[in-house]
Amino acid sequence: VSVDPPPLISLLTDFGLTDGYVGAMKGVILGITPHARIVDLSHEVPPQDVAAGAFILGRAYPYFSAATIHVAVVDPGVGSNRRPILLRCARGTFIGPDNGIFEAVLATEPDVEAYELNAPAYWLPQISTTFHGRDVFAPSAAHLAGGVPPTRLGRRVPLDTLVRLPHPEPRRGAEAVYGQIIYVDHFGNAVSNIPAAWVDALGPRAGLEVVLGPLRLRGVHATYADVLPGEPLALVASAGLLEVAIRDGNAARGLGVRDGDRLECHGESA
Amino acid sequence: VSVDPPPLISLLTDFGLTDGYVGAMKGVILGITPHARIVDLSHEVPPQDVAAGAFILGRAYPYFSAATIHVAVVDPGVGSNRRPILLRCARGTFIGPDNGIFEAVLATEPDVEAYELNAPAYWLPQISTTFHGRDVFAPSAAHLAGGVPPTRLGRRVPLDTLVRLPHPEPRRGAEAVYGQIIYVDHFGNAVSNIPAAWVDALGPRAGLEVVLGPLRLRGVHATYADVLPGEPLALVASAGLLEVAIRDGNAARGLGVRDGDRLECHGESA
Amino acid sequence: VSVDPPPLISLLTDFGLTDGYVGAMKGVILGITPHARIVDLSHEVPPQDVAAGAFILGRAYPYFSAATIHVAVVDPGVGSNRRPILLRCARGTFIGPDNGIFEAVLATEPDVEAYELNAPAYWLPQISTTFHGRDVFAPSAAHLAGGVPPTRLGRRVPLDTLVRLPHPEPRRGAEAVYGQIIYVDHFGNAVSNIPAAWVDALGPRAGLEVVLGPLRLRGVHATYADVLPGEPLALVASAGLLEVAIRDGNAARGLGVRDGDRLECHGESA
Repeated sequence: VSVDPPPLISLLTDFGLTDGYVGAMKGVILGITPHARIVDLSHEVPPQDVAAGAFILGRAYPYFSAATIHVAVVDPGVGSNRRPILLRCARGTFIGPDNGIFEAVLATEPDVEAYELNAPAYWLPQISTTFHGRDVFAPSAAHLAGGVPPTRLGRRVPLDTLVRLPHPEPRRGAEAVYGQIIYVDHFGNAVSNIPAAWVDALGPRAGLEVVLGPLRLRGVHATYADVLPGEPLALVASAGLLEVAIRDGNAARGLGVRDGDRLECHGESA
Repeated sequence: VSVDPPPLISLLTDFGLTDGYVGAMKGVILGITPHARIVDLSHEVPPQDVAAGAFILGRAYPYFSAATIHVAVVDPGVGSNRRPILLRCARGTFIGPDNGIFEAVLATEPDVEAYELNAPAYWLPQISTTFHGRDVFAPSAAHLAGGVPPTRLGRRVPLDTLVRLPHPEPRRGAEAVYGQIIYVDHFGNAVSNIPAAWVDALGPRAGLEVVLGPLRLRGVHATYADVLPGEPLALVASAGLLEVAIRDGNAARGLGVRDGDRLECHGESA
Repeated sequence: VSVDPPPLISLLTDFGLTDGYVGAMKGVILGITPHARIVDLSHEVPPQDVAAGAFILGRAYPYFSAATIHVAVVDPGVGSNRRPILLRCARGTFIGPDNGIFEAVLATEPDVEAYELNAPAYWLPQISTTFHGRDVFAPSAAHLAGGVPPTRLGRRVPLDTLVRLPHPEPRRGAEAVYGQIIYVDHFGNAVSNIPAAWVDALGPRAGLEVVLGPLRLRGVHATYADVLPGEPLALVASAGLLEVAIRDGNAARGLGVRDGDRLECHGESA
C-alpha cells in the first residue's frame, strides 16, 4: 500500500526533560492524532529565554520538510494577554505564543500568513493559566496535523501586529565588520551575528584577523582540525556565521566568551 | 486504508540520557513490537527517588489515551525479591517494580487490577540482576503492546498486597490550610500538596496570605505575569496545587525553598 | 494489511540536547524517509570522547534488531580527511566517521563489510565543514533506510584500513585479575574492563576480594540490594563486567573513582 507520510510535529520548549511536562504534551498530541510523528528540537532552552529559543528554531527548521508543524513554547507571559498564534509559510507551520519566538521565521520567510488561535473547541476542555503548551498549543498542533485547516483554528491577523524581537545587527565598514556573540552552544563554540558573505567580502580568509577582546586570531578557518588541539580559532561553521572555537575544547569556558561580547573581523592591512 | 492507532508506550526512569540504557530498552521494545510508538516521560528522575518518579508519573499519565502502556522504572531494589507488576485501570496500563512508583495511580484510580509478572517467556532470554528495565519490563510492555493479554504476562494479586508510598497529607483548619512542598520543578517552582479546592474554601484568592518560612505572600494568583519580573508569588498552577514561584526567576534558588518545607495558606483575618 | 516493520535508525552523538543539532538531523532523515523510526541512544557523550561513545554504542546495539541502522557521530575530525564510513554485519549497520567510534563492533562482530561513503548524491546539496552529522551521515542513513543499498552509498574498503581504538586490556594471573575503570555511568557506578568469566575463574564470588585504591571489598555481589544503603560493593552488573557501586548512592562521587583507576580482583587466599 502507498500511504501519505505521517504528519510531523517538532517541539521546542524551555520545560527541561525532568518533570514530564513535555511527555504530557506528547500524550495530548497522540491522543488526538495517534499517527502523528513527534521530533524534539530542544527542551533545554534557558528558562524564559525567548531569543535563544528563536535562534535554535531558526537554525533547525530549514532542515525539516515544509509539511512540518513546529510547536515552540518559551512562554514567560503564559496566562497574560499575549496571543496564541499560528504562522504558515512555504517552509513550514509554526504554533506558539506571540512573543518573538518566531523571529527567525518572520525575519527570513517571504510570505507568512498569521492567525490568532481563537477556537477553544480545538484546545483541551480545561485550560490552565500556566501550561498552554499542554492545553492550547499541543492540541492545536495535533488537530492541524489531523487535517483541521488553520482557518478553523484561528482568525487571520495582520503581520505587523506580531511581536518582533529586537536583535543586534552587525555593522560593516570598508575594511572590517563588527558584530557580537549571539549564542554559545553545547561545545562552548561562540556564534556571532556576522554572516559568511560579509567575512568573505574582506578578502581571502587566510589573511583576515578576528578580534575578540584581547584575543587576535589569524585567519578564518573551515573546520576545527585546521589548528592543533587546544588552540583557539575563528571559523565559518554550519550556521553560516563567524564563530570562535577551541579545537577539542570549550571556547566559552577557555576564553570566557559569552553572549553579547563584541567580535570584529578585519581585512588584511596593507 | 483505515488502521488502528499504533500502540503507545511511555517510559519513565532514573537512568539519565547519557549511558544508552534507555536506548537499549527502546531497542528491545521495537525488536518485539516494531510498530509500537514510544514517548519519554522523564529519564531524569533523581536516582532512586521513587516518590519523585511517582509524582511525575501521576501528573502526566492523565494526559495520555487510556490505551497507553506506561513503563516506570525507578528501581533501587532491582534483583531483590521486590515483585515486578502490571496494573490495569480505566486510564491506562502500568508496568514496573512494586515499590510505590505507581502510588498516584493506586491513590487516584477507582478500579485497578494488579498482576505480578511471572512469565519469563515474555522477558529477554538472559535476565541480568541489575537492569530489569531492559530485561523484564521493556519486553513485557512490548508483548502487551503486541496483543498478549495481562493474564498471560502475570497472575492476579490482591491490591492490598501492593507496596504503598507514604506521602505527607495536608491538614485543614477553619481559617487556614497547612501543607508542605512536595516537588521542585525545572523552573524552580515549588509545588505543595495543598489542593486548589482547599485554598478556595478559605475565601477569595486575592485576600489570602501564603506563608513559607519568613516569607508572607499576599494573594493567590492565576499566573506568573500577575506580578513584576523577579517578584515571588503564590499561585495555583497547572497541577491544581498551590505553588510558590518567582516570575521569570527560580524560586528554589532565590528563596531557598526545598522539598519538605512547610507551606501555609491563611484566610483573610477579620 | 500486513506491512513490513518501519526502518529503524538509532542516533548517538556528543551534540547535547540544547542546540537543536539532533533535531536538524532528524528533520533531514524524515524529509528523505518519512516512515523511518528514530531512537536516541545518547546525545550526552562527553564532547569529542570517541572512546566513551564507542563504549555506549557497544553496550546498546546488541539489543536492537539486526535491521537497525546505527548512526554515531562523535567527530572531532569533522571536515578533515577522516573518512565517512558505513559498516554492515549480521547484527546491524553502522554509519559515522572512521575514527574508532565503531571499535566495539569491529572488536566483536565476525563478518563486517566496510564502505567509505563517497556518493554526494545521497548527501545534502550543501555540505558544511563542521556538521557532517546533518549533512552526510543523516541523509546517508535515511537513504539506506529507504532502500538504497550500501554499494551505492559507498565503495568497499578493506577492514584493515579502518581506524582502531586502543583500549586497555585487563590482565589475568593465577590468583588475581587486574584491570581498570573504563566508564562511569549516570548513577556513579564505575564499570571496569574485567569480564565476569575472569572473575568467576578465581573461585566462588563470595570469597573474592576486590581492590580499588585503598578500598578492599569482600565478595562480588549480584545486585545493589545485597548490601545496606550507603555501602560500597563490587558486583557483576548488566554489562557483564566487574563494577564498583554504592547502594542507593554514587560511587564516583563517594569514593572518588574515575576513568583509568586500577581495579583488582583477588581469589581467596589460602
